[in-house]
Amino acid sequence: MREFSLAVVGATGLVGREMLRILEERGFPISRLKLFASERSTGLTLPFRGEKLKVEKLGQGSFRGIELALFSAGAEVSRNYAPQAQRVGAVVVDNSARFRMEPWVPLVIPEINPLDLDQQKGIVANPNCSTIQMLLVVYPLHLAARVERVFVSTYQSVSGTGEDAWEELAAQSRDLLEGRKAHPSVYPHQIAFNLIPQIGEFNQKGYCTEETKFLKETQKILHEKGIKIYATTVRVPVFRGHSQAVTVQTKGRLTAAQAKELLSQAPGVKLMEGDDYPLPIDCVGKDEVMVGRIREGEEEENILQLWIVADNLRKGAALNAIQIAELLKDKL
Amino acid sequence: MREFSLAVVGATGLVGREMLRILEERGFPISRLKLFASERSTGLTLPFRGEKLKVEKLGQGSFRGIELALFSAGAEVSRNYAPQAQRVGAVVVDNSARFRMEPWVPLVIPEINPLDLDQQKGIVANPNCSTIQMLLVVYPLHLAARVERVFVSTYQSVSGTGEDAWEELAAQSRDLLEGRKAHPSVYPHQIAFNLIPQIGEFNQKGYCTEETKFLKETQKILHEKGIKIYATTVRVPVFRGHSQAVTVQTKGRLTAAQAKELLSQAPGVKLMEGDDYPLPIDCVGKDEVMVGRIREGEEEENILQLWIVADNLRKGAALNAIQIAELLKDKL
Repeated sequence: MREFSLAVVGATGLVGREMLRILEERGFPISRLKLFASERSTGLTLPFRGEKLKVEKLGQGSFRGIELALFSAGAEVSRNYAPQAQRVGAVVVDNSARFRMEPWVPLVIPEINPLDLDQQKGIVANPNCSTIQMLLVVYPLHLAARVERVFVSTYQSVSGTGEDAWEELAAQSRDLLEGRKAHPSVYPHQIAFNLIPQIGEFNQKGYCTEETKFLKETQKILHEKGIKIYATTVRVPVFRGHSQAVTVQTKGRLTAAQAKELLSQAPGVKLMEGDDYPLPIDCVGKDEVMVGRIREGEEEENILQLWIVADNLRKGAALNAIQIAELLKDKL
Repeated sequence: MREFSLAVVGATGLVGREMLRILEERGFPISRLKLFASERSTGLTLPFRGEKLKVEKLGQGSFRGIELALFSAGAEVSRNYAPQAQRVGAVVVDNSARFRMEPWVPLVIPEINPLDLDQQKGIVANPNCSTIQMLLVVYPLHLAARVERVFVSTYQSVSGTGEDAWEELAAQSRDLLEGRKAHPSVYPHQIAFNLIPQIGEFNQKGYCTEETKFLKETQKILHEKGIKIYATTVRVPVFRGHSQAVTVQTKGRLTAAQAKELLSQAPGVKLMEGDDYPLPIDCVGKDEVMVGRIREGEEEENILQLWIVADNLRKGAALNAIQIAELLKDKL
């Protein structure tokens, strides 16, 4: 079997470390693996297949000989280094928002639009975590009954922000339980025992970045300009696992029973029924997007409601990127 | 000024104690105040206007001479004792779900349908916390542009369940932070650093009680059978304050600017704008229902989105009940 030379950029972050775990679990054929991170992490080592790999600093020539580069170090690093990797012939799978809306960059969920990879020109974008988990469930319903509007409210864990945010939730929770004040630093407000209904900056209409991503990314992935997504994105005091309350308005009628039947066969989706609904603490480390609480509105309304939970570090980020890499390697 | 003899049933609970605080703050004209609670609380005393009032056990003759009885001790106590209070001539304001959907019982939010109190026959029902805070904001929009559908996802604090749940969240959080396991007892699942997308029992269609209350109570309060509410109700690891992501579809067009103008003048509502949006930790102890993040969808869609937060123990329960009592006393 042919093996590939890989780079993971942002290897020490929550998503980067999850990538290493998944590459190992899935036995990705690797001839050489280079790990990159920011200056403060260089010199560290990370375990991979029984070895200890040194974390390097990005620089000129970092991507020489690399065939596939998985980026998860933020939009700034992607902006500065993804084109460099691309120039020396690597194919980049970028987890940041930097290239997602570039018309020449495929934005791919392997279960939905794998063929878009045929158009790749050296950079492929991984969608936002929230978009991935929502579409994995909404897409089969869309194929069956044409989804016209999605109303989604999110309950997003702090691991979506990164390790600092994880520690902030723990530290603030401890402080408050012991009668001390909480000290916000990563987030603009206290996150422990609280909610923050803003993820990213606001645009002129009052939508925050995380909300507009839903709409733009969905339209691009589904190649459907007509579908409307109305989102409210909220950070909640949960460590890991993003949840979504989703209501879809379909053109055709779809009963809850029909939706369950479709979702029981949907790739990457785990259907749960009745009292057995998905919880964020149960999705940690799981590959599937879990869906439960499927129920239908009044007949004339063509409305279905669902509760969707996924591990934002896996299918929401690292796993989807590696699934893309798996498809790409067969074409290199 | 005429003074009234009052009873508070469930006086030692979170809502009961909030009632005593609010009766004191608002200078409710009271000649005599009797406090009732379950057996395990009898003998306790609670402070009221500088005195210590003894908590009694409910029994035969408890309501003799009482003119107004505020019940907040659960549906079972209301079922057993509210009719007894009614029979001896007291007017009951009941915070439980027991009588809300009885056709002869007014279900009242004083800012919305105070005139329904004219039909009272001895029992008046206080709506569910979630309904109250949503309608205080949605009603002015409905008057202006006719709301046809509301899509609401809730983020409900543990204080809505009671003191045991409050302690469970604190204890589980401590246990988990110190590396121990969480032990669910009040809730069927871990609540600390987790979410529970179920409040109440499921009906045959898969909706839980808290979700169906939204629809039935809204239709009754607004006297509108046509309005549709699609709800997902979720318990979150927050101590106090319920939050809601609300999307309304209106018949007429309403811009975000028009909605803000309406809500800036709506009784009981506090409008917040831009980065200044409501958080559950900021609403504790406040009377107003706070609304922010008001934004509009595409023009042809007639859709508005909002973020609503309120102190579930105050306007969601104790305050609304006492506002009803204030209206009732002028008619006694």
